[in-house]
Amino acid sequence: MSGFRLLKTESGARVGELTTAHGTVLTPVFMPVGSGAVVKTLTPEEVKDIGFRIVLANTYHLYLRPGIDLIEKAGGLHKFMAWDGAILTDSGGFQVFSLSPLVKLNEEGVKFRSHIDGSEHFLTPELAIKYQEALGADVIMALDECSAYGDSLEKVEQATERTNRWAERCRKAHQRAGQALFGIVQGGVYSDLRRQAAEFLTRLDFPGYAIGGLSVGEPKDMTFKLVQETAVLLPENKPRYLMGVGSPEDLVECVGRGIDMFDSALPTRVARNGSLFTPEGRRNIRNAGFSRMESSIDASCDCYTCRHFSAAYLHHLFKAEELLVYRLTTIHNLRFLSNLMQKMRSSILDGTFASFRNEFLSTYQPTNEQTRVEQKEKWLKSKRTDKQGGMNMDSQMELNQERLRLRDKFGKALPGLWKAEQGVLDEVYKDGALPAKIKRLLAMCVALGVGCTNCILGQTTAAIDKGATKEEILEALSVMLAIRGTTGMAESLRVIKLMEEKGMV
Amino acid sequence: MSGFRLLKTESGARVGELTTAHGTVLTPVFMPVGSGAVVKTLTPEEVKDIGFRIVLANTYHLYLRPGIDLIEKAGGLHKFMAWDGAILTDSGGFQVFSLSPLVKLNEEGVKFRSHIDGSEHFLTPELAIKYQEALGADVIMALDECSAYGDSLEKVEQATERTNRWAERCRKAHQRAGQALFGIVQGGVYSDLRRQAAEFLTRLDFPGYAIGGLSVGEPKDMTFKLVQETAVLLPENKPRYLMGVGSPEDLVECVGRGIDMFDSALPTRVARNGSLFTPEGRRNIRNAGFSRMESSIDASCDCYTCRHFSAAYLHHLFKAEELLVYRLTTIHNLRFLSNLMQKMRSSILDGTFASFRNEFLSTYQPTNEQTRVEQKEKWLKSKRTDKQGGMNMDSQMELNQERLRLRDKFGKALPGLWKAEQGVLDEVYKDGALPAKIKRLLAMCVALGVGCTNCILGQTTAAIDKGATKEEILEALSVMLAIRGTTGMAESLRVIKLMEEKGMV
Repeated sequence: MSGFRLLKTESGARVGELTTAHGTVLTPVFMPVGSGAVVKTLTPEEVKDIGFRIVLANTYHLYLRPGIDLIEKAGGLHKFMAWDGAILTDSGGFQVFSLSPLVKLNEEGVKFRSHIDGSEHFLTPELAIKYQEALGADVIMALDECSAYGDSLEKVEQATERTNRWAERCRKAHQRAGQALFGIVQGGVYSDLRRQAAEFLTRLDFPGYAIGGLSVGEPKDMTFKLVQETAVLLPENKPRYLMGVGSPEDLVECVGRGIDMFDSALPTRVARNGSLFTPEGRRNIRNAGFSRMESSIDASCDCYTCRHFSAAYLHHLFKAEELLVYRLTTIHNLRFLSNLMQKMRSSILDGTFASFRNEFLSTYQPTNEQTRVEQKEKWLKSKRTDKQGGMNMDSQMELNQERLRLRDKFGKALPGLWKAEQGVLDEVYKDGALPAKIKRLLAMCVALGVGCTNCILGQTTAAIDKGATKEEILEALSVMLAIRGTTGMAESLRVIKLMEEKGMV
Repeated sequence: MSGFRLLKTESGARVGELTTAHGTVLTPVFMPVGSGAVVKTLTPEEVKDIGFRIVLANTYHLYLRPGIDLIEKAGGLHKFMAWDGAILTDSGGFQVFSLSPLVKLNEEGVKFRSHIDGSEHFLTPELAIKYQEALGADVIMALDECSAYGDSLEKVEQATERTNRWAERCRKAHQRAGQALFGIVQGGVYSDLRRQAAEFLTRLDFPGYAIGGLSVGEPKDMTFKLVQETAVLLPENKPRYLMGVGSPEDLVECVGRGIDMFDSALPTRVARNGSLFTPEGRRNIRNAGFSRMESSIDASCDCYTCRHFSAAYLHHLFKAEELLVYRLTTIHNLRFLSNLMQKMRSSILDGTFASFRNEFLSTYQPTNEQTRVEQKEKWLKSKRTDKQGGMNMDSQMELNQERLRLRDKFGKALPGLWKAEQGVLDEVYKDGALPAKIKRLLAMCVALGVGCTNCILGQTTAAIDKGATKEEILEALSVMLAIRGTTGMAESLRVIKLMEEKGMV
């Protein structure tokens, strides 16, 4: 029921055909992300109308909510989400390592906490397969251990070797017919580890191979080099899937390096933030310059949004926070990618891919890389912390130092405002009817209540500097529990950590 | 270009045909609300597919954002929002009186503050017409002064007479051809005032008449009585539009009292809150009971949502806060009303309306009236207060009394939990390293920071009871300004008001 046929190769790029029980998918293909059984803001019909025949869903998200068992009883994932095209499910490995507070990792599997409610769960290679069999996706992924950018060779080596052993266990556990299991090549930024992983996994003869653990913060030229090196090590007659890559320029670069499949939440995530793909690069519809633009934002685009609405209207909907706009921008970005992949497939078949690539990259102005990396890190961090009250493992004192450094920059950039604001702060925080120490405790509690990490660190530090004792701070935290419940307590743990670092508790 | 033809009358209900430059609309009709040039969550195509040929937009909202001038330059409202059906614009009177902090009202017009940014604006009958001419809607409304339920006879009389004089000025100012201007009958709950208004406006010979100022908190039987009395006073050959009414049971009741047109944000607003119309009444999809319901929520429904998705899937999307679900529930509720109006028109034409009405009302279980009124008041209040920091003119001490009454009910409903919670509160708020007074000030600041009205009132009262002085409270409020800026200060005004009521400032 599932297979891959390579149709044409040109300048390193490939056109192929992925056959599944839910239709045939032409490659290279971008797969929209629908982690929670929905491509955010879109109906299945819209996803199809935009041009997609395969979407990605996520075992980790579906396991936590609504539960694998519920979806299985409802007739499987296709039926539950009313999508009759193909589905690829990720195993949950990436999410366990990026979104969840990790409890414990060993050879058997990984114990993690839900990012939703903090409950504890255990995932093994065998369970990852069992869950994905129950969901019934057309393509499923082996469970992998993801390294972070910056991890040492030794640490990445251990993770990569474990990923290889887990891949072998997944291969053994997998039973369901008509479902293709892909192995994942890890190895971080270490070419030798990636080579060993590719060779190991190739021997296991998977019906497809993914390259994981890239686009996680490393420089782009490093990504491209590792993609190129790894791709050529994989069997030519099997599909190659580069995980988590989806900006237009990266898609073009990596198709040119022999990749067949891609997924990324970036196109839909930045759309909901107002950032729209155009042939010249990303444009943010929230910018005031679009408030009176009566044409569509991208004259060359044939998407539903551009055919019906002016940039001015989209700008208005954003200003008014109208829910429709998040859909309209999502439709545009996905259509842009659908068209881009179609153009790449055509140019490969025509033998003109090399010139298409050059022309596209000479026109498309990529988002500044540093901005891109910072945005991604910020987003990952917010995913990690928002839902559970903000505890992360960084040093709170270091975080506070970084805050002070940036505040200093802020002050230098806006000296007049900063001086005036200092006047306000001096007036507010001086000893008065309430001592300065109490005022800082008040501010600390407000900061905790609204979950502002930087304010929490600044005010707690100031309260301690003004002589607040451990007991006083703990009692202030107890008020947080009373008035904000356990969510109030959760964020308070940051204060406990800061006191711990200062040797107070 | 615009006119009305009465086709059939049965048991007090009427079927008619409203002709506009943007198509013919069969009445009785419900008009979805698209205040800000969008029916929330929907594209124009979806609104049309659901069965609607006319929508309502709002001059007040569009004037403030994106601006009348911008829409006029973009080619008018139809083009701006890409809707080729008919549009009715409300004059803005209701919003000025319900959403905006009113600055000054006189015979000339009304000075008000924007609920978005606090800027000051002046609206007159002539300007209301000018703006609506510029927007280019098919049906426009005269500027009216809306009374609140509970206003004295004298106050309502003044408002009604002013509304009548403003209607005359609107009639004189209106020039644009192909656009029908409707007069609005006010008069609060006073039958005599409504009779005088209806007679006065009838003499001005408007192409249509609205009944305004109902469904604003008065008991339902009073609404129905006033609708019935007023409707019969209006010219038979002109459309009658009951403003702000849109629950299924009210639509059936008021069609039976001779109303032709309706609008209300309720069906779309409650949809976004998970409340779905069914033939048996409203059901909330967020209830755990729906988590495993594999059929659609309403087996009799032919809407896109019910044809494609299970109740369990909608429940899942709500839990995951997926934006798609707000659209899916909106589609369902609007389709329910579109079908309901269609059934009423058919039954009137067939001469079976009376039995249709009886059958519908015997099956449909209306939402408890008290709940309904409370929900609406809460919503109106939140609209009034959310954006500008929460000051309203009610007595803060009375609000606190009401809080205590309801807290008492909460405690009696959950006695075990309440006892345990008291244990927490006693432990937290006792004198310790920090005095109880300081702890209450901490809690007050947290409540201010998150904008919880009831907590602000409770904690401020407790702080005062524990001996907090005016100076101490004011300094705590000054911390709010420092840490939350002017938004922190704005909500602090509630504390100032409470202290004022207690004679402290």
